[in-house]
Amino acid sequence: MPVHHPSRDGGTGSDSGLLNPVWAGSWASSALSEQAWIAAMLEAEGALARAQAGLGVIPVSSADVITKVACGLRIDASALAERSRGAANPVVVLVQELSAAVREVDPAVADHVHLGSTSQDILDSAVMLLAVRALDVVERDLARVAAGLAELVSRHRSAPMAARTLAQHAVPTTFGLKAAGWLNSVLDASLRVRRTAASLPAQLGGAAGTLSAYQEYARGTAAHRQGHGVELAERFAAELGLSEPSVPWHSLRMPLCDIGWTLSQVTGVLGKFALDVQVLSRTEIAEVAEPTAEGRGVSSAMPQKRNPVLATLIVSAGRQVPAHSAVLAQSMLAEDERAPGAWHAEWQPLREALRLTVGAAQTAAELAEGLEVFPTQMRRNLELTEGAVVSERLNAVLAPLLGKAESKRVLAACARQAVAGEVSFAEALADHPDLRDQLAFDAQTLLAPDEYLGAADDLVARVLQRFAREGA
Amino acid sequence: MPVHHPSRDGGTGSDSGLLNPVWAGSWASSALSEQAWIAAMLEAEGALARAQAGLGVIPVSSADVITKVACGLRIDASALAERSRGAANPVVVLVQELSAAVREVDPAVADHVHLGSTSQDILDSAVMLLAVRALDVVERDLARVAAGLAELVSRHRSAPMAARTLAQHAVPTTFGLKAAGWLNSVLDASLRVRRTAASLPAQLGGAAGTLSAYQEYARGTAAHRQGHGVELAERFAAELGLSEPSVPWHSLRMPLCDIGWTLSQVTGVLGKFALDVQVLSRTEIAEVAEPTAEGRGVSSAMPQKRNPVLATLIVSAGRQVPAHSAVLAQSMLAEDERAPGAWHAEWQPLREALRLTVGAAQTAAELAEGLEVFPTQMRRNLELTEGAVVSERLNAVLAPLLGKAESKRVLAACARQAVAGEVSFAEALADHPDLRDQLAFDAQTLLAPDEYLGAADDLVARVLQRFAREGA
Amino acid sequence: MPVHHPSRDGGTGSDSGLLNPVWAGSWASSALSEQAWIAAMLEAEGALARAQAGLGVIPVSSADVITKVACGLRIDASALAERSRGAANPVVVLVQELSAAVREVDPAVADHVHLGSTSQDILDSAVMLLAVRALDVVERDLARVAAGLAELVSRHRSAPMAARTLAQHAVPTTFGLKAAGWLNSVLDASLRVRRTAASLPAQLGGAAGTLSAYQEYARGTAAHRQGHGVELAERFAAELGLSEPSVPWHSLRMPLCDIGWTLSQVTGVLGKFALDVQVLSRTEIAEVAEPTAEGRGVSSAMPQKRNPVLATLIVSAGRQVPAHSAVLAQSMLAEDERAPGAWHAEWQPLREALRLTVGAAQTAAELAEGLEVFPTQMRRNLELTEGAVVSERLNAVLAPLLGKAESKRVLAACARQAVAGEVSFAEALADHPDLRDQLAFDAQTLLAPDEYLGAADDLVARVLQRFAREGA
Amino acid sequence: MPVHHPSRDGGTGSDSGLLNPVWAGSWASSALSEQAWIAAMLEAEGALARAQAGLGVIPVSSADVITKVACGLRIDASALAERSRGAANPVVVLVQELSAAVREVDPAVADHVHLGSTSQDILDSAVMLLAVRALDVVERDLARVAAGLAELVSRHRSAPMAARTLAQHAVPTTFGLKAAGWLNSVLDASLRVRRTAASLPAQLGGAAGTLSAYQEYARGTAAHRQGHGVELAERFAAELGLSEPSVPWHSLRMPLCDIGWTLSQVTGVLGKFALDVQVLSRTEIAEVAEPTAEGRGVSSAMPQKRNPVLATLIVSAGRQVPAHSAVLAQSMLAEDERAPGAWHAEWQPLREALRLTVGAAQTAAELAEGLEVFPTQMRRNLELTEGAVVSERLNAVLAPLLGKAESKRVLAACARQAVAGEVSFAEALADHPDLRDQLAFDAQTLLAPDEYLGAADDLVARVLQRFAREGA
Repeated sequence: MPVHHPSRDGGTGSDSGLLNPVWAGSWASSALSEQAWIAAMLEAEGALARAQAGLGVIPVSSADVITKVACGLRIDASALAERSRGAANPVVVLVQELSAAVREVDPAVADHVHLGSTSQDILDSAVMLLAVRALDVVERDLARVAAGLAELVSRHRSAPMAARTLAQHAVPTTFGLKAAGWLNSVLDASLRVRRTAASLPAQLGGAAGTLSAYQEYARGTAAHRQGHGVELAERFAAELGLSEPSVPWHSLRMPLCDIGWTLSQVTGVLGKFALDVQVLSRTEIAEVAEPTAEGRGVSSAMPQKRNPVLATLIVSAGRQVPAHSAVLAQSMLAEDERAPGAWHAEWQPLREALRLTVGAAQTAAELAEGLEVFPTQMRRNLELTEGAVVSERLNAVLAPLLGKAESKRVLAACARQAVAGEVSFAEALADHPDLRDQLAFDAQTLLAPDEYLGAADDLVARVLQRFAREGA
Repeated sequence: MPVHHPSRDGGTGSDSGLLNPVWAGSWASSALSEQAWIAAMLEAEGALARAQAGLGVIPVSSADVITKVACGLRIDASALAERSRGAANPVVVLVQELSAAVREVDPAVADHVHLGSTSQDILDSAVMLLAVRALDVVERDLARVAAGLAELVSRHRSAPMAARTLAQHAVPTTFGLKAAGWLNSVLDASLRVRRTAASLPAQLGGAAGTLSAYQEYARGTAAHRQGHGVELAERFAAELGLSEPSVPWHSLRMPLCDIGWTLSQVTGVLGKFALDVQVLSRTEIAEVAEPTAEGRGVSSAMPQKRNPVLATLIVSAGRQVPAHSAVLAQSMLAEDERAPGAWHAEWQPLREALRLTVGAAQTAAELAEGLEVFPTQMRRNLELTEGAVVSERLNAVLAPLLGKAESKRVLAACARQAVAGEVSFAEALADHPDLRDQLAFDAQTLLAPDEYLGAADDLVARVLQRFAREGA
Repeated sequence: MPVHHPSRDGGTGSDSGLLNPVWAGSWASSALSEQAWIAAMLEAEGALARAQAGLGVIPVSSADVITKVACGLRIDASALAERSRGAANPVVVLVQELSAAVREVDPAVADHVHLGSTSQDILDSAVMLLAVRALDVVERDLARVAAGLAELVSRHRSAPMAARTLAQHAVPTTFGLKAAGWLNSVLDASLRVRRTAASLPAQLGGAAGTLSAYQEYARGTAAHRQGHGVELAERFAAELGLSEPSVPWHSLRMPLCDIGWTLSQVTGVLGKFALDVQVLSRTEIAEVAEPTAEGRGVSSAMPQKRNPVLATLIVSAGRQVPAHSAVLAQSMLAEDERAPGAWHAEWQPLREALRLTVGAAQTAAELAEGLEVFPTQMRRNLELTEGAVVSERLNAVLAPLLGKAESKRVLAACARQAVAGEVSFAEALADHPDLRDQLAFDAQTLLAPDEYLGAADDLVARVLQRFAREGA
Repeated sequence: MPVHHPSRDGGTGSDSGLLNPVWAGSWASSALSEQAWIAAMLEAEGALARAQAGLGVIPVSSADVITKVACGLRIDASALAERSRGAANPVVVLVQELSAAVREVDPAVADHVHLGSTSQDILDSAVMLLAVRALDVVERDLARVAAGLAELVSRHRSAPMAARTLAQHAVPTTFGLKAAGWLNSVLDASLRVRRTAASLPAQLGGAAGTLSAYQEYARGTAAHRQGHGVELAERFAAELGLSEPSVPWHSLRMPLCDIGWTLSQVTGVLGKFALDVQVLSRTEIAEVAEPTAEGRGVSSAMPQKRNPVLATLIVSAGRQVPAHSAVLAQSMLAEDERAPGAWHAEWQPLREALRLTVGAAQTAAELAEGLEVFPTQMRRNLELTEGAVVSERLNAVLAPLLGKAESKRVLAACARQAVAGEVSFAEALADHPDLRDQLAFDAQTLLAPDEYLGAADDLVARVLQRFAREGA
């Protein structure tokens, strides 16, 4: 079964997100496909050849040929996958195919392909390349989310709404503060994305991390000297634009764990935003609505519905990514110089987590940029409890007058009367014998939710300042 | 972007296992592809039409047309995926495409497509179809694993080898018992696979589980009577060969959790077998070797190697599946009549877990059927400690003579001498002042590992009997 | 540091649920404490002695002494824990303590303690004892949940309410059907609990699963015969009331995985119920409320609040248990005859999952037995969309008149007008030019939610029948 | 049931690690107990009072009394846990108890307790205090691990040993490089621990994150001014020595996720070290041994054993922590201003992860400081394959002579002959017709493992330099 089909596209291959529409049609659908994985491995082979040529281990012309052939090579992913079973990874067969293709161009160069290398050097480096690129895309979309949210914060900065804790109205807050919380978290996540992307290392260790074959092949060339292996690793990292680790990390898997964790944080932050959108767009609450678009949010059966589908897609990602990250964390338990199983269990979880995060970030950008906000409905909901939503404030005022315990008792009693539907909370307060004579107690003013927003505006200001510094 | 391309294959679509070679080339690579997912959904649409026709809601001829068109429809998975974002699931668009294709054949029938239905009825039923089929394939391969292991048990039933606990030689055991343990677990797993497969339900509830639109469309037809909805659900399940649940389970997700758990158990059982193969094929241990095959177990750099790649592939699956199962378990926390996110997070984890398990079972069959076992090397390793491996037995003999504590002290002292390389364990025993005069103590006989195999053979017999009953 | 303090209670030991109040004060707080763990291990030691005495390996009087001393022994859990580090499990030191305590009673009997045994036989059997008991308690509480829900189903069987999908009103349903769904799931979970509890095996294998030392110690006694080991294992299981496995399962960990996933299923089912209670008790929805009790649901700051705290506690359990189950599933990947790490990682996740599930079941019983349901508020919410909640039905009626696509278009347009606040949905329908002349279309009747409940009542009947069969 | 027992110790409470001996007896056993959790909450109450006094909201004398009473208060954890069910968290009852205790000292001060605060402010801040302290302890022990490993690296820097990949000998490496890999990872983990510890924020938001009640209580005091809330939050953070977040993070849970993953990284790094120790201490390999100690590594049944128990304890932690981290990551999906369930699911997973990591770090320090290394046995194992372990090198030499493919073929053939036991690998090489006449091929020299260590020493040097910079 030949896997090398120069004349053919090599299969469109790869899932398209049918089962995870959050990333369907996104950058991830092509850039993290099996073809993309193959291309990144070929890119790593080219980079290795150029690094070796730069040090004089192979001729520059060889590196040119290898790079060029690697760039143009089309591989049938499906056939490659099947043949990958032989070595439990795709690199062995890929190198055979690359060598064959190079041989067709220049037989002498074929022996310079993958010189002194090992499968894991190529695959790990390719994975890092793809991860860096995916993180860059995520970061760009997080910047869009941040900008969209900052705009929402500014537009509805002081709109009062009910804060909800344990599913109940608590006290008033502002939509500005709510959205500022989302924004601040997005800035937190962006920092982590940038930090992780900048830290990702190339892998170059040879068969078991000693760089021995790389040095052996340099023997008898100008490159042969003390320190050649380390120098080669540095050049290789530079060719790929990746950072250079202190030692090969074939079974020291911190970088994978870093990526996984960062992706969980991104989808966690976006998932929180999305969950809130879902709550706020409930039929009974109706304080926000997703941006409309042709065919979006429609139900196959109920024409009246306007489902929060963007939020749903984002939440679906947020529920999956931590599981993938946990597999990557577990893979740190890797024995020997290459672990039989722990390493092999990383690739797909990593890819899924990247796909989901890329999709979630893109979807969240759409959501943040188009979210509709309904301050009138917020105010209507805020008045649902007829003042009980500020009972915390009443308590703060009454406690010095009645004592803390007595104050709570009185207010709870009034709240119970209101819940029972006998009178409104305001009326219950007005009628309460303990309150009637309290001169310092002006229920009318105290019950206005707008007057009990605490430091909401100050907090919003801090987040907008942070956004001005970091978010641009 | 039209997704319906009658003239074209619709894309080979779908990952091919490049990042999880454990299932590359297996049944899963085509039968769990995005195309297969689409086909199963279309199958569910056909079954619904036939169930409705059977009860007289729509003409039988409509059901025929729908079934036939659904069977032959080719959909571009990638375009469908992208358009699925509008409803956060692929069914809405799929129904549009199916309706259009039916309309081309007979415009009047188009309105009978997906009649009264909801996306989740179709998607959930399709998922169950695929899961049942995958579990059947898994079960078939587990039967091969069991047969292969039973053969190994029989062939090497009494071969003594070192049992290892906490990475140290413990006492002698037999390869027969070791493999019987694997076999017994595989039989356990098979039972669970069969039980779960038999329990998987069709889904038919309509928009929110009341079957209301199904009943509404029956109004004015012969089918209109008390109990129509439930009757339709029964027929639908029968058409699909699935079991019929008491109530629609749109947000009551036990079946998914059952599947996930069962898959974890299968890969857990196979992973244990594979881990043991890895340990036993270590260079220093070398008691078993994987079956050879062209291109298998080769290293790109080290021609001498014969890597346990089948075991590695199986272990890689065993490390991933529990994470998917946990996501499915988490999805039981699904609010309302359809959860915005929990449901959508199930599809890909389920598919991945199915793919991995199908692949692991197939790979394990290959491994069990071809595993090479080296009894000579087992014996050599058993003698490595020069008798210390039966110190438990010596202790059992000495304890009555010297007292339990004293016996342990003496034996530990002899073991330490042996480890220090001063004398062999047997010599240390022979020289020990407390043992020299013990007439009842015949070290020579007692030190023979073959004489200290306990009930290994009885236990093997039990498992082979069970296999004879269940495994055929 | 002596850990045996006959004169002292041995420390109250053990977490009390401060960080997981869901199980605070429950059966789990004492019955799964460290003391309980110790007691179960001692129980296993007693059972072993009795099984051996029954076969004549040791005198019956020895078994009596051991059983009695084991029953009464008080161990300082904290000192035992610390000394457990020496063997990485507590049994070695526990046996020393038990032997010492037995020696005080009868020195000759001390050598009959733990005869031929291994730590894992004792610890695994103890774990199974505790798990069976916990599952029994869970099952009893699930029966209470089921009874409570059945009562709610009966009482509010036909109360119409809005079904919600993707956070939006979908179509009408009944509270009866909603609660019947919860009930049906609880019956599903009960089945699994019973099945798992009945399957849990005792562990008896000796040092490495061959039962060799048990047989060795039988040598020279009446018990010495072919098959002694297996016979002993059977007796041991019978003494503990556990099932008897085909082979020792020191590193074949299906039973743990079975328990873990069963617990996930229980908390998944209860968590779904609790999530729905949280949604329905939102301030804006207010269709149910938790049972009140002194000090329950109070907020430290907001006297008006009545937080759904029982539901919150249950959800908190539902979010944790699958992670523990996944660790147990991962522990199936256990190498050799005793895995150095996989086994040791099981104990605490298992205990946590048991504690959480016991607590969740007890809490859910309280919730189901006392849940307040407000049909009036359900009706009010159902009318929020002024009829749009039955647009699915209108569609079913209009589709034959206008065609499927046109019907959806018209209804969506009316819904949009209503959302925009121009007119009510009913008015929009009445005014729509395409509908005015449709004689078959009686909007008034069609818009009544009570008339569009589908098969809700039939489905409720099925679940109540099932409950009558299984739930008593 | 009164929970406040000034006269009594309050119960030793809390698990002691019986089921996770990895942390038994460690700092975590007291410093992360339920009592410690209570003490940290009381500490937060004191800090709040002092912060308010500093701004003039309450008298300094009140803060003094509150601080003093909070310090000395003894609470029965078990009773508190049970009463915590009322609010689903322990703070409400704790505040009642603290207020009562303060009232006994000075009734007027009781109303200054917890002034304007909310349960989550106190609990989250307490959690951060405990986490910072635990991370500090972890970091200290990581420094010990690093020093221990650096010492091992230096001592055995050039000791040749077999590198193992996929469970097979690959090429030679040095123990120096192997241990340098462990060391480099420990330095990586230390960096993350320090970074996370330094970032952990105090929590101060009031009922729903607006700081409203804090501001309300300041009204009429000198503290009443624009910005009071934010200023108070700053002072509170300073009192606790925690960092100050931009906004309250009641349902923005990045800090918890940061902690969780950092802990996974630590136990992942240590678990890798421990796994390698387990492999290397296998009976057949025997290249290292754990430090001996009274009662350590003993088996209850097999006196000869010397189990790698420290490594086992560490691995047991490494297998559990990622699951806890994943729960914490999932808790980022937290709706509203306080999530009913997500928040409550964090506490115990966080504590377990902290306990396990503290224990693993302490245990790893013991292991690193005392690991015994056997270079002679390493060399013996390296010679097991009689030269095949350097076949990569032979290949590098032969490839230019015979061509790459032919070279591999020849070497594989020789390796096969050696495995078949016909001749040694060296003899097979010597006899091979294609090699006999290769003048450039001096098998004798080429087969010496010491001559094929690549850049091992250069890499070791880099890590030791890094250690010199960072590890002190």
